[in-house]
Amino acid sequence: MVYSLKICFATTNKHKLEEARRILAGYGIDLEMVPEKKREIQSEKLEEIAEVAALEIAESLGIRVVTEDSGLFIQALNNFPGPYSAYTHDTIGCEGILDLMRNKTNRRAKFRAVVAYCESTQMPRSFIGIVQGNIAPKARGIQGFGFDPIFVPTEGDGRTFAQMTQQEKNQYSHRARAFRNFGEWFQEYQRSLK
Amino acid sequence: MVYSLKICFATTNKHKLEEARRILAGYGIDLEMVPEKKREIQSEKLEEIAEVAALEIAESLGIRVVTEDSGLFIQALNNFPGPYSAYTHDTIGCEGILDLMRNKTNRRAKFRAVVAYCESTQMPRSFIGIVQGNIAPKARGIQGFGFDPIFVPTEGDGRTFAQMTQQEKNQYSHRARAFRNFGEWFQEYQRSLK
Repeated sequence: MVYSLKICFATTNKHKLEEARRILAGYGIDLEMVPEKKREIQSEKLEEIAEVAALEIAESLGIRVVTEDSGLFIQALNNFPGPYSAYTHDTIGCEGILDLMRNKTNRRAKFRAVVAYCESTQMPRSFIGIVQGNIAPKARGIQGFGFDPIFVPTEGDGRTFAQMTQQEKNQYSHRARAFRNFGEWFQEYQRSLK
Repeated sequence: MVYSLKICFATTNKHKLEEARRILAGYGIDLEMVPEKKREIQSEKLEEIAEVAALEIAESLGIRVVTEDSGLFIQALNNFPGPYSAYTHDTIGCEGILDLMRNKTNRRAKFRAVVAYCESTQMPRSFIGIVQGNIAPKARGIQGFGFDPIFVPTEGDGRTFAQMTQQEKNQYSHRARAFRNFGEWFQEYQRSLK
C-alpha cells in the first residue's frame, strides 16, 4: 500500500486546487481544501504574503498547511499588476492589460508563484516557481483562468496558457513549478524524519 | 491654555501627515507620526484594511492610534484601482489610468478614505470620507500626490486636485472629510469622559 500524507491547501480557487493536487499526488501528498478564507497582507513580496497566511492558519487550526500566491509581473509596466493580479483581473481584466500594453514594444512578462508550507510550531518555508513569457497582442483560448489568455510562455510553441490543456500548462506553469519544488523538499523532509 | 491631546498617526506618507495634522489641530488633537510601518491586509474594503492595521499597532505599542487608507474607485473600470491605488500609481501611474480610460465616455470616479481609530483595549472605529469627481482627459497640476493630477472634484471649478493648494483641496478632499468626521466624534467622546 502506498502511504499518502494529508496536507491542507488554503484556497477558495478550485482551478488552483486541481492544478496542485495533480502534481502533489506524485509526491505521495493528498491535498485537501481548507474552506478557511486566508487573510492576505499587502506586500510587493509574494513570499511574505504566502508565509504570513500559512503561519496564521497553521497556528489557529493546528494543521499542516500550504498557501499559494502568484502574480503576473510585466516588465514595461514596472511589474504591474504583480501581487494584486486577482483584483486587477476582476476589475479591468485581460482587456485592461492589453490597453496598457497597446504601444509597448517590450512585451516581456513573468508569472511568479510562491508556495508556503507551515506546521503549527515551525517557521514557514517558501518555494518559488517562475515562468518567463510575453504578453500576447490579443486574448486567445478559454482554458485556465486569470491572465492565462494573454500569456505566451517563452518555452512553448506560441500558444497562450489558455490554449493549453491543464497537463500541457503544468509543463511550464509557475504554480506547477512551485508545487514541484515543495513536493521534492517535502519528500526529503519526510525521509529525514524516519 | 488650550489642552491638546496627542494621537499617533501610523503612516510613512508626509503629505498625508500634513493634510491630517492641519485638520485635527482644529479639534485640539496633536497628531504625531508613528514611524512603525503598518501591516495592511488585502481586502476590497478600506474599512477592514484600516481597522486591522490600527488594532495591531494599538495592541502592540499600547497607544492611541489612527490609520488611514484611501483609494480611487473608477466606475467604468469596476472600481479599479480601489484599495490597491498606491501600487497601481507606483507602477502604471496616471498615464496608465488615462490609457485605460481612453475610450470611456463614463469618467465618473470617487476617492474614498477611511480613518480608523483604536485605543489599546477597544474595538477600532472607522470614519469615512468620500469625494465624487471625474477622471480628467489628461494630467494637470503638480501639487498633492498620487492620482491628484487626473481627478476633478464635481463640487470644484474644473481644476484637478493637483492644481489646488492644500487648503483648497481640504475643502473637498475625501481624506480631509474622513479626518473631520473623526475629529468631531473624538471631541464628543472626550467630553463624554469628563
